[in-house]
Amino acid sequence: MQDLKAVGKRIPKIDAVDKATGRVEYIQDIKLAGMLHGKILYSKYPHARIVNIDTSKAKQLTGVRAILTGKDIPEIKFGVYKDNRPLKTGKVRSYRDEVAAVAAIDPEIAQEALSLIKVTYEALPGIFDPEAAMKEDAPLVHEEHKTNILKMPWKLHYGDVETAKKETAYMVENRFSTTWVTHCCLGTSGAIAQFDNTNNLTIYTNTQIPSLAQKDFLSALKAMGLRDKRVRVIKPCIGGGFGSKLDTYAYEYLSILLAFHTRKPVKIVFGREEEFFATSTRQPTIMDVAQGCDKNGKLLFRDISMVLDNGAYTSWGATTPSVMMMPITSLYRVPNVRYEAMCVYTNNTYSQAMRGYGNPQATFAIESSMDMLAETSGFDPMELRRINANQAGDVSPQDFQITTCGLDQCIDEVEKRLGKKTPKEKGVGVGFASLIHVGGGARVYKSDGCGTIIKMDDYGKINLFTGATDMGQGADNMVAQIVAEELGLDVADVHVIHSDTDVCPWDVGAHASRTTFVAGNSALGAAKKIKARIFDMASKQLEAPPEILVMANRMVMVKEDPKKRLEIGKLLRKFHFSTNGEMLMAEYFYDPENENLGRDFKGNTSMTYTFGTHGARVKVDEETGKVQILKYVAAHDIGRAINPILLEGQVYGGVMMGIGYALTEQIIHEKGEIMNPNFRDYKILTIKDVVPIEAPVFETFDKDGPYGAKGIGEPGCVPTAPAIANAIYDAIGVRIKDLPITPERVLTAIKAKKKLES
Amino acid sequence: MQDLKAVGKRIPKIDAVDKATGRVEYIQDIKLAGMLHGKILYSKYPHARIVNIDTSKAKQLTGVRAILTGKDIPEIKFGVYKDNRPLKTGKVRSYRDEVAAVAAIDPEIAQEALSLIKVTYEALPGIFDPEAAMKEDAPLVHEEHKTNILKMPWKLHYGDVETAKKETAYMVENRFSTTWVTHCCLGTSGAIAQFDNTNNLTIYTNTQIPSLAQKDFLSALKAMGLRDKRVRVIKPCIGGGFGSKLDTYAYEYLSILLAFHTRKPVKIVFGREEEFFATSTRQPTIMDVAQGCDKNGKLLFRDISMVLDNGAYTSWGATTPSVMMMPITSLYRVPNVRYEAMCVYTNNTYSQAMRGYGNPQATFAIESSMDMLAETSGFDPMELRRINANQAGDVSPQDFQITTCGLDQCIDEVEKRLGKKTPKEKGVGVGFASLIHVGGGARVYKSDGCGTIIKMDDYGKINLFTGATDMGQGADNMVAQIVAEELGLDVADVHVIHSDTDVCPWDVGAHASRTTFVAGNSALGAAKKIKARIFDMASKQLEAPPEILVMANRMVMVKEDPKKRLEIGKLLRKFHFSTNGEMLMAEYFYDPENENLGRDFKGNTSMTYTFGTHGARVKVDEETGKVQILKYVAAHDIGRAINPILLEGQVYGGVMMGIGYALTEQIIHEKGEIMNPNFRDYKILTIKDVVPIEAPVFETFDKDGPYGAKGIGEPGCVPTAPAIANAIYDAIGVRIKDLPITPERVLTAIKAKKKLES
Repeated sequence: MQDLKAVGKRIPKIDAVDKATGRVEYIQDIKLAGMLHGKILYSKYPHARIVNIDTSKAKQLTGVRAILTGKDIPEIKFGVYKDNRPLKTGKVRSYRDEVAAVAAIDPEIAQEALSLIKVTYEALPGIFDPEAAMKEDAPLVHEEHKTNILKMPWKLHYGDVETAKKETAYMVENRFSTTWVTHCCLGTSGAIAQFDNTNNLTIYTNTQIPSLAQKDFLSALKAMGLRDKRVRVIKPCIGGGFGSKLDTYAYEYLSILLAFHTRKPVKIVFGREEEFFATSTRQPTIMDVAQGCDKNGKLLFRDISMVLDNGAYTSWGATTPSVMMMPITSLYRVPNVRYEAMCVYTNNTYSQAMRGYGNPQATFAIESSMDMLAETSGFDPMELRRINANQAGDVSPQDFQITTCGLDQCIDEVEKRLGKKTPKEKGVGVGFASLIHVGGGARVYKSDGCGTIIKMDDYGKINLFTGATDMGQGADNMVAQIVAEELGLDVADVHVIHSDTDVCPWDVGAHASRTTFVAGNSALGAAKKIKARIFDMASKQLEAPPEILVMANRMVMVKEDPKKRLEIGKLLRKFHFSTNGEMLMAEYFYDPENENLGRDFKGNTSMTYTFGTHGARVKVDEETGKVQILKYVAAHDIGRAINPILLEGQVYGGVMMGIGYALTEQIIHEKGEIMNPNFRDYKILTIKDVVPIEAPVFETFDKDGPYGAKGIGEPGCVPTAPAIANAIYDAIGVRIKDLPITPERVLTAIKAKKKLES
Repeated sequence: MQDLKAVGKRIPKIDAVDKATGRVEYIQDIKLAGMLHGKILYSKYPHARIVNIDTSKAKQLTGVRAILTGKDIPEIKFGVYKDNRPLKTGKVRSYRDEVAAVAAIDPEIAQEALSLIKVTYEALPGIFDPEAAMKEDAPLVHEEHKTNILKMPWKLHYGDVETAKKETAYMVENRFSTTWVTHCCLGTSGAIAQFDNTNNLTIYTNTQIPSLAQKDFLSALKAMGLRDKRVRVIKPCIGGGFGSKLDTYAYEYLSILLAFHTRKPVKIVFGREEEFFATSTRQPTIMDVAQGCDKNGKLLFRDISMVLDNGAYTSWGATTPSVMMMPITSLYRVPNVRYEAMCVYTNNTYSQAMRGYGNPQATFAIESSMDMLAETSGFDPMELRRINANQAGDVSPQDFQITTCGLDQCIDEVEKRLGKKTPKEKGVGVGFASLIHVGGGARVYKSDGCGTIIKMDDYGKINLFTGATDMGQGADNMVAQIVAEELGLDVADVHVIHSDTDVCPWDVGAHASRTTFVAGNSALGAAKKIKARIFDMASKQLEAPPEILVMANRMVMVKEDPKKRLEIGKLLRKFHFSTNGEMLMAEYFYDPENENLGRDFKGNTSMTYTFGTHGARVKVDEETGKVQILKYVAAHDIGRAINPILLEGQVYGGVMMGIGYALTEQIIHEKGEIMNPNFRDYKILTIKDVVPIEAPVFETFDKDGPYGAKGIGEPGCVPTAPAIANAIYDAIGVRIKDLPITPERVLTAIKAKKKLES
């Protein structure tokens, strides 16, 4: 291996001290001159006709600057299906429907104004169960669609599942379900919109997609009659993303509309309760899974159908089946696959992207089912996985090209660290589950690209503008470490500027664990252009051909004769400070060669794939049903660890999110109304709940990754729930097929099992 | 000529509406979280030993956060000769010497703290007259220099002046003088310094030289023991520059030092009185000028020596002789030239760069002398100028290469518009004067370069980062219009980002009328790179070779068949939204091929030179001595007018500044103390004083200028004073050789003349 100085090093997050000392600016901290405060009035019904909105009293309140209702705004449509509007007209379809918005000189007055708006509703029958919503006579959420079933194409069949079912030696068939959980970003949502005198818009907003949000807001401006304008999106420091900020929200459009009406900057910031009910969730699923293998344990088929509760509007949650397909077709070698998913409108909340984007749901079902198949077929669960493990060089049924694959090593390592199932003490068990995830970008939009601009100063220091959006995951470190490595600089020499569409090049957004791979390659490309020019300059000075030069320790030197060297800053000044001087700048746009999925859902969506195996040793208290995790091992093939502490941070954080998903987290809806919109009743895990986690990594040095790296943002939370469910089964012999695995569910299952045994 | 759509158009200044409506942020408007306010204690003596500074009482004042004296700070040296320090130790050398600095929670407390600082001085004899200061026994301002005469090399002799003097038919020899005037920026000076947790510095400061200020501040950090740090210089919108901000000032270092000591952002903003006495002035001069011509009116020689009052410290004012050389050697063809200038330390205020940088002083002397030579030799003043006018293709004695020259046209035009001297009514006269100035950059530093980065979005719009510093002169328009022209876009499509060293490429600063030429060429270079790539893309789509394509109206089209065309945004999206997509970015660093002056002061310092002739018709009231300007004509060869309204704005503003210099403005010093530090007693011209000005332009389309343009920032104020002085002489027959030409001076001269005549 190369002797690396920056890549692979445990360098703390660049903004760690600023965050710890309160210097970074969150949306909450930003104040603009003359700024007004906006508040949103939400529906009082899950489904109702809006008969009348009387804002007269609210308008008279001193300090109120604007009140908007659906009738006051142009036809701005947003969301994946453009079925949502910032303020509703005609009817409301869920409790989170926005009915009116107020801008006032302070938040308290805005809040008071909301209470003075009188909305007359005519209640309509609601529909809250997706399977019921599919029936012919169900109330329609969007009448114009004539059905509650979304016209979405999630249906594939590779090979011949029916024939395989006949040939199968062992087969299992089960129904699994998952419910709503939410991202629980510690920084609540918010935006500040401001127009200049020519109606160009600047918006500070908590987003993971500055470039795509810019596009959405440009469309909104067009709807407002403002053509040919500029939109600048600035993302302040955000307290967590996890996919929640991959779409634009009504509150962003409302800050824009209120700013336009008042000619002042307007800030809308959510409180915690609003964050719970008015931002989005992970898509709930009902999953029917059948799998079968031959007598040698080789998987013959996988047959999965799903129903997803879409809620009242369509955001990215509805498209999670496109990612669910990945584990369904490509986690382990499986020749015959059939999959169908239906998204159904209900009067519940609608869902967003969330870390893993459907993969945790699908992997919960698949990997629970795998253990059940192992039991049915008599194979050791890990042996069954080894028999079917993906291998480098494979092309999966969906045409995914597995260039590097450390799944075997991950399986072995986790098993080594946790031990096999037997022997064991009472109530203790181990369980395992594996994962596949995109690790080399994911072409889900027309571009999967990211741009970089590098500007070098007279001292060998760099300002780097990246398209990458840092949201705490460490995009800034990745880029800085890669560029520092490539140019032989200190990481502190590379100043990363991000999250401002005026300054930073385009990027499709922080999703699909793509940033290290795509932004890393983009930064690397720009650095290589700089390096070529430095070598060219140094070559003249050192009288040596560029091919024999290297950069290290802020020097350019002859590789085999390091005494022949030049300090980089000195070299740069020499070329700057002469007639017709030069200064080094470079730009690079990297868009991977991955493919959009075709109509048959085939296509190499990512340049490479990340694999991993998780295992848990749990202890179940059979009196209370409480599950305690004694040890957790999460092994991943990550290509290359650019920064091991940030990598571990991603894995630890992902695993804790996965454990919450497995055991404690759920948004409880009753007839569309959220019952637990706070951290007392919604059981997110806290620092006190942290379990012992080990996160061994295997470096397979992917040929396409920057320094061989693959993405690792999401995998941590993907196979957590099935590993735990499998461990619980191993511990006490009960199989929980519905998340979260609460003590109540465990106890109920224990009772049912005892009843059956007695 | 080409049919231009953006270049040559009267497009209002991009930020005009924002300025008019109060949206732009001046340093006064910027507030940072936790910001403290700094104030400076100045010397009570023009020259004194500091015996003791007692800050104990001031330190006890509630709200005071730091008090610094010279002993508390490291050895930070600044200024051209590094003879200045942010806080003085040992002794003070002028009334503006900084003795202590305070940071407090509000400006009032800081001010009160100043009053509680007790400084004990031991007065020293001061020296306020530069000629007296040159004497052997004069008190020394800087003892270590052993003399008050600065070791500066301003001495040249081309040809043979002594021989020429012998051969000359007509000769005049006179002494002229100019005094202190100041820039009168309506926005007063200020800075806010802030350190991050790793001691990188961000400083918001009113500067014309972000990149060189960054270098100065990096040196200061080094002196403070902070090595290897980053400095980000952000220039907010500034209310005028005019050269005043070409150097770094003590208050900037004090904001840095106070911020470092308090760990808080510290803001120092000047009041108007402080702006008058603690910022700098135009260098006062005593100029002895001899010129002679042969019997045909051909100039034979010019022999000039000067004494300049340097004040107590050395900023750029001391180097104005390097620019004075330009008119001295190269305004009109003159074969034999001798020049010597001496800068002398005194206990007066020190001088800075100011619009024209010595040229107004020198041109006042030369062009007054030219009229006197015309009278002596019997030539018509304009005829004498025509005989000696520079011509394109000339190489001047200083090796300036005159590539384009419209001086003849300017002389003719001004004469045409104002008429010859006779016939005339009583007390009315006309006078003329010409100018040469650098118009194609000016290599006064190791680099005369400027960088540009262009980033294009999916809609054909541009974000452009320029090194150019807009300070109200319209650098943003110049760059936007040039790039819009080159790429066939609307000017509003080009968003110019400037004045932030993190984001913007390097530039040597806004001086020497260089921005349109240098930043314009830099922007043009980047635009050409973009254009080449667009043509390449379009070539594939239109099936036409790049050579036959043009860009206009946001389209790329086949020149001879404009129906074959593509909308630029659409083309860009096509190349962005495909596998291995591209987005257009480009960087370009332009550094002209001009030369630093050699030891002999020869060298083609600028790529081209701007010429012009001014003329004034004045009416002198012989009872009061008051001079009224009836009409003013300022004709220039500007290569190409990129934007005629901004060009006219520069000329009008320059002329008004020149009229103030000629007639009303002076800082009155008494023993080093400024007597009129306010706009009541310092007579800057106001809107009520505006005279009828015509500003005809001649376009000579310089081969090296962007679209043929030359610089025009300074010329407007260069020949104003001599044109007026010559007109006064024409009107009433008195020759005023000292500026300003106040009514008192005119009356005194009239009386002296009458006495002589009687």
